[in-house]
Amino acid sequence: MNATTDLRICVLGLGSMGLGMAASLLKRGFTVTGYDPNVDAVNRFADAGGRAAASPGEAARGADVVLCVVVNAVQTETALFAADGAATAMAPGGIVISSATMSPDAARALAARCADLGLGYLDAPISGGAARAAAGELTIMASGPAAVFGRLRPVLDAIASKVYELGEEAGTGAAFKVVNQLLAGVHIAAACEAITFAKAMNLDIRKVYEVITASAGNSWMFENRVPHILDGDYAPRSAVDIFTKDLGIVSDIGRGLKFPTPIAAMALQMFVMTAAAGMGRDDDASVARMIAGLAGLDLPGMER
Amino acid sequence: MNATTDLRICVLGLGSMGLGMAASLLKRGFTVTGYDPNVDAVNRFADAGGRAAASPGEAARGADVVLCVVVNAVQTETALFAADGAATAMAPGGIVISSATMSPDAARALAARCADLGLGYLDAPISGGAARAAAGELTIMASGPAAVFGRLRPVLDAIASKVYELGEEAGTGAAFKVVNQLLAGVHIAAACEAITFAKAMNLDIRKVYEVITASAGNSWMFENRVPHILDGDYAPRSAVDIFTKDLGIVSDIGRGLKFPTPIAAMALQMFVMTAAAGMGRDDDASVARMIAGLAGLDLPGMER
Repeated sequence: MNATTDLRICVLGLGSMGLGMAASLLKRGFTVTGYDPNVDAVNRFADAGGRAAASPGEAARGADVVLCVVVNAVQTETALFAADGAATAMAPGGIVISSATMSPDAARALAARCADLGLGYLDAPISGGAARAAAGELTIMASGPAAVFGRLRPVLDAIASKVYELGEEAGTGAAFKVVNQLLAGVHIAAACEAITFAKAMNLDIRKVYEVITASAGNSWMFENRVPHILDGDYAPRSAVDIFTKDLGIVSDIGRGLKFPTPIAAMALQMFVMTAAAGMGRDDDASVARMIAGLAGLDLPGMER
Repeated sequence: MNATTDLRICVLGLGSMGLGMAASLLKRGFTVTGYDPNVDAVNRFADAGGRAAASPGEAARGADVVLCVVVNAVQTETALFAADGAATAMAPGGIVISSATMSPDAARALAARCADLGLGYLDAPISGGAARAAAGELTIMASGPAAVFGRLRPVLDAIASKVYELGEEAGTGAAFKVVNQLLAGVHIAAACEAITFAKAMNLDIRKVYEVITASAGNSWMFENRVPHILDGDYAPRSAVDIFTKDLGIVSDIGRGLKFPTPIAAMALQMFVMTAAAGMGRDDDASVARMIAGLAGLDLPGMER
């Protein structure tokens, strides 16, 4: 048994991010068990060499590390602490890595419940998308005790090219991720507004993409998402509903702190309008289709 | 006399952009006359080897090319067409290069007035900031007749590292620049909102800068402007009032086209609020100071 891979790992949530992370761990020689309520996801995991289980508790039995890559705080709590959840099934002194985007308060509450059971907790949101998850090249924004970071080093090295160690306390990793999501959500909404505005002015929007990506108006999201619009391809790499959720977290935190977030609030409404128009599960660049539909413009793939 | 530098050039507007462009032309051996109502600006131009004049008309006397780098459409119109303006003083068949950010309609109107006088017109907004202007490495988003581009080639090569040729018609260059400014303005306001939100959550904002610039939440403006906030340095590289103007143009065009721009509209209000608080002439990152002042947060340089 290899000293760096003798940790028994359980992955809960086998969507595109969790599956990619599990595959990266399998490639490095870790034994990985997994659970997801979606049967197709479980089958892809088994095809990659993972051991499928019928519940979080079964998947986590005897695991040293549980990597939880579900959608939000409520799903994380369910996977860990519901009947047949993972927390009470893990090896004594095991560590939970929590990667869902959630509020700092939610991360602190989960860490406290883990501590009550003698489990370690790493507050470890991720950034980078499905392709980088599959390549083992995610960015992780993590906070937790130094001893937890130390024990998890080979796991983190397998899934990430960059691990930010942001402090000892749960909640700090979550807060950094929320700041990133504020910007990411605003930049997607702004990219969709700008490219449809260009269309409304009868500009060649492929040329607009070329010029803006070389100019001061560029953003990571503009560069990444506008090609979906140019190709008329709204198959979800990341869905509109992810940003109604994440900008909702921004809004909740802001109200709690009495801190105004007007730009994020407007962007949130753009995603809510897009979801209201029936595109919640489509790619988040669908905000452009929502605007174009409203304004009677034909973007690629929308020709009538 | 060098065949590529025998064009007589006049620069109107010797602020940081116009001065940098004039200096780049002087370095390449062009003869450059110039005018600005600000005496300090004129002195810097003379120090760089330029020939100062007392009015736009005097500066433009016999010029083959007038490069107009003022703030907006109204100033451009005044510099060209007011009493002692440049247009009627130029050499027959001269060309006006107009670089102020303005609406496509305003650019078309100026081009038509130039055509009435037998003058050529290049709709040529610029991007890149003062440092790149001084280095002759601007990006130019230009539209105009092929013959105009051809005649101006040595001039454009002297001031820009990248010249986008976007079509024959005046107004197209202006429209591309307006799309860029929509994104730039929203990204500055979002950067200011995000970094003060991080401060409200008690995060280390220097660490936030490090993490975000390596993550999907990054933008050209976040990366460029947040250092001003971290250093508490609001000396204007580009002022708040530039974006009340440029997002105002977006708003005007949108209303004219019956096209909604809610994100840009909210960002515009953030700049207006910052100007209302007395910071209109300060650096555009002052939106962060406005938010911090409202929310009782101490950003660097604001400690009480």
